[in-house]
Amino acid sequence: MEPGSDEYYMRMALAEAEKAASRDEVPVGAVVVAGGSVIARAHNLTEALNDPTAHAEMQAITAAASYLGGKYLTGCTIYVTVEPCVMCAGALAWSQISAVVYGAPDPKKGYTTTGVDILHPRTEVRSGVMSEECSALMKKFFRKKRD
Amino acid sequence: MEPGSDEYYMRMALAEAEKAASRDEVPVGAVVVAGGSVIARAHNLTEALNDPTAHAEMQAITAAASYLGGKYLTGCTIYVTVEPCVMCAGALAWSQISAVVYGAPDPKKGYTTTGVDILHPRTEVRSGVMSEECSALMKKFFRKKRD
Repeated sequence: MEPGSDEYYMRMALAEAEKAASRDEVPVGAVVVAGGSVIARAHNLTEALNDPTAHAEMQAITAAASYLGGKYLTGCTIYVTVEPCVMCAGALAWSQISAVVYGAPDPKKGYTTTGVDILHPRTEVRSGVMSEECSALMKKFFRKKRD
Repeated sequence: MEPGSDEYYMRMALAEAEKAASRDEVPVGAVVVAGGSVIARAHNLTEALNDPTAHAEMQAITAAASYLGGKYLTGCTIYVTVEPCVMCAGALAWSQISAVVYGAPDPKKGYTTTGVDILHPRTEVRSGVMSEECSALMKKFFRKKRD
């Protein structure tokens, strides 16, 4: 796995997702990269914070914008283990982020299920990066929940 | 104006929007009401916080959920001066809020422009409450910006 590759950063996002799992949170993780540096990393904390908006992506966007000192994330790429929901895609659109790279699709809540272009027109999307690993973490979590 | 009416709470949301305007923020305000009590009030702070997610509704949702100690806002109503965007509608969907009451439509960024049902199926929507006043505040703000 080459440093700086999509897989390289997705592995970091997966490590974040594993932190969420260990806290009994839906295991989604995200990192934001700018100029080859990771400027934000976050995982889902909706249960711990009692906050339906505390998805990994939302926290990563807030942290990255704070780090950069501006509300736009042009020049940045977000790596997220699962396809963003409508809320997160809407937030990514406002940020004008340059690229969204996600792992597993979310056929129930993913933004692409709406059939509407929610992201900013200049945002590049790459999907299916380490999809198996990202998906396996989710499946394991929900299987455990059902037991 | 009857206490407890839609107009009553929308006036509070408008007061929040005016606070935003006085800070040179896009003037949108929101309040969340549960059992006849205001449990959260917020205004747009995207500029002050350098955060594209810091819309009035997002902050009001986070504050209300924190107050209630749970991530669901069933039994609550949000009053917001302008039609929520896709991000905020997505957040309101996650919260399962019982009702969304908004003032002015947003023909550019409002969630209804997508033509997709983003809100939770059990969320009631009432629109056009004090629409003129809510809209006037926005128009005044953007006119000043253009001057």
